[in-house]
Amino acid sequence: MSVREQAEQARVAAVTLAATPRAEKDRALLGMADALVARSPEVIEANAADLAAGRAAGLSDAILDRLALTPARVTAIAAALREMAGLPDPVGEVVRGSTLPNGLELRQVRVPFGVVGMIYEGRPNVTVDAAGICLKSGNAALLRGSSSAANSNAKLVEILREALEVAGLPADAVQLLDSSTRDSVKELMRARGLVDVLIPRGGASLIRAVVEESTVPVIETGVGNCHVYVDAAADLEKAVAIVLNSKTQRLSTCNTAESLLVHADVADAFLPRVLAAFAEAGVTVHGSPEVAAHSADVVPATDDDFATEYLSADISAAVVPSLAAAVDHIRRYGTQHTEAIVTESLAASREFVAAVDAAAVMVNASTRFTDGGEFGFGAEIGISTQKLHARGPMGLPELTSTKYVVTGDGQLRG
Amino acid sequence: MSVREQAEQARVAAVTLAATPRAEKDRALLGMADALVARSPEVIEANAADLAAGRAAGLSDAILDRLALTPARVTAIAAALREMAGLPDPVGEVVRGSTLPNGLELRQVRVPFGVVGMIYEGRPNVTVDAAGICLKSGNAALLRGSSSAANSNAKLVEILREALEVAGLPADAVQLLDSSTRDSVKELMRARGLVDVLIPRGGASLIRAVVEESTVPVIETGVGNCHVYVDAAADLEKAVAIVLNSKTQRLSTCNTAESLLVHADVADAFLPRVLAAFAEAGVTVHGSPEVAAHSADVVPATDDDFATEYLSADISAAVVPSLAAAVDHIRRYGTQHTEAIVTESLAASREFVAAVDAAAVMVNASTRFTDGGEFGFGAEIGISTQKLHARGPMGLPELTSTKYVVTGDGQLRG
Repeated sequence: MSVREQAEQARVAAVTLAATPRAEKDRALLGMADALVARSPEVIEANAADLAAGRAAGLSDAILDRLALTPARVTAIAAALREMAGLPDPVGEVVRGSTLPNGLELRQVRVPFGVVGMIYEGRPNVTVDAAGICLKSGNAALLRGSSSAANSNAKLVEILREALEVAGLPADAVQLLDSSTRDSVKELMRARGLVDVLIPRGGASLIRAVVEESTVPVIETGVGNCHVYVDAAADLEKAVAIVLNSKTQRLSTCNTAESLLVHADVADAFLPRVLAAFAEAGVTVHGSPEVAAHSADVVPATDDDFATEYLSADISAAVVPSLAAAVDHIRRYGTQHTEAIVTESLAASREFVAAVDAAAVMVNASTRFTDGGEFGFGAEIGISTQKLHARGPMGLPELTSTKYVVTGDGQLRG
Repeated sequence: MSVREQAEQARVAAVTLAATPRAEKDRALLGMADALVARSPEVIEANAADLAAGRAAGLSDAILDRLALTPARVTAIAAALREMAGLPDPVGEVVRGSTLPNGLELRQVRVPFGVVGMIYEGRPNVTVDAAGICLKSGNAALLRGSSSAANSNAKLVEILREALEVAGLPADAVQLLDSSTRDSVKELMRARGLVDVLIPRGGASLIRAVVEESTVPVIETGVGNCHVYVDAAADLEKAVAIVLNSKTQRLSTCNTAESLLVHADVADAFLPRVLAAFAEAGVTVHGSPEVAAHSADVVPATDDDFATEYLSADISAAVVPSLAAAVDHIRRYGTQHTEAIVTESLAASREFVAAVDAAAVMVNASTRFTDGGEFGFGAEIGISTQKLHARGPMGLPELTSTKYVVTGDGQLRG
């Protein structure tokens, strides 16, 4: 079946989903969770085929680990669906409302988008997460996963679709697209009018290609060249801990710090401490000459280093003469994802927060907190780095649009 | 200067604007209003040149009327700027906030987009409106008006820029792009990274071209094939008035009704009345056979008629066997702008509101109410017919993005 035909079926399913009350959606989510756990052995078996193919193709251990499913992981994936069932339904929420001077009652109400397209990397849990989040928000999902997870995804979607039917909802609310060719990505990007929004997740080149070529509205996600700026008024102990946590708590996520900026006034006091901590943690520092002066382990940084999202045990570092210079540096090299300041100065924190243009600005906290789960959203479909519609972690409300409902008793425009 | 260079200057201006407090922006708006009134003769003179060129080029009276400026119209344009000064500043509004379990304070705060691009038709008032709305919301504006208004726009922007400088704000916050060639539109559409959002206003073909070709995120506006559905439980007197007002209160706007659907149960009672009213108002009805049976004046409707946004004294009309059939018809032919039901039945109104997918759904009210002014927004930059970011009339909040500000005292992710 072509992507267009699948999208047309999704549109039909979306009409039903939009009118499905919360209780029925939650029942379906719980049924999906139960079915996944019950059929866990089938899922593991399908996943084993993907892992074998991945090993044969020479995928890295890190990628194989992200691809791998275990009974414990399947249980965790099912638990996430059950949590979604407990979240409030975004559909029907009244965002704004008033009675107009002529007596018209104006209500802006959340409604589902309709059909959501997802393009994502080789983590099978995303298949279930995305299907669940879309269902809860009343949207049909077109899922284009990685070919490396083709067997796992096919099995997962088979189970989810059966659970939807058991719950009396249309199976076409969740559909997997062909991952054996890039053609399905191209077709999805051109399905304007059938697909309401496209969310690409994954590497920078995929996201750039989708943004460039898609006529379907896109929500850009992911690339994070995040900075931690240690201010002249920083508590240096907090600063070491925040920098280290921001860089090393997990190396390969978009909210991981990739660059350290240190105010010149505290460089001599701070750099030896943080460099020692990095050395102990096995992090390579790519530093400007002022940074390199403090340790022979520092690799000289090029201009490219400051623009790089390493996603590895590397960090760039520079000394800046002022907070304003830190802001300028971030404006030049940052990707508007997450930027942090460490300072005890209220004035400095206010200046940084106001001047830095990013999805999230942290004051005395790790960059790693930019996350739907950490923000308390209960579910997350990605982190938007664009300014339109959604910015930062996207939860259920971000998967909705709105509709104005205007109720009167015969009002005419004069 | 190239559009890219203008956009780069706009970005610099946007940094200043984002940090400009409300009082300064309002002072600039009032200064712009004063300057427009004071220099009204210059504006009228520039406009006279556009009108002469338009007449020579054979523009229609309707288009010349929209292009024309009079002292009264300049005063009205200035008054709109003064009204904007009185509106609350959307920047800084806290949209969402909570304290997380670990003590982090989370705030989602409205921030300007940065640089907004506008492409629009030959109405010089849009130049001033757009500049004012962008300034109030802290955005720099790149304005690409119609070549038919080139002289008027150049004079207006000259006055606005001088007023900005007098108010101590960067003149480059408002820039006019070359309207003598389509190249400026193309450059604007490819200025991703410099321009944050593009709002095309005007004909369907322009909007389609921008949506297809732009890599800058677009907010689609404008096309409205709006329906009024007269339900079996309608008050027929209200229905005649609402249908007539929806069609004839202004013929050429996107919220004008273009199609009438009548439930079969009331067709015999309603159609003679509404057809007589249309005949009196000079509206040509393009009807299905069931409609045509009631009057020799009805022109037989083709399938194309039901898909047409006439923007003229024409309306298509059909009889439907049920509310569900009306919804199906709207789903097939509508453009998701504004759809209205006339009914005294609560159940019917709820069913219609839930099932119809549109920016605005009217119950017993004219379609003409879908308008930022009528909704009480105080200012409007267009009516979005897309689902991403903004849907329906767009006021000041719709010209903003948000930023998460997270404040802690050393929190780390565990």
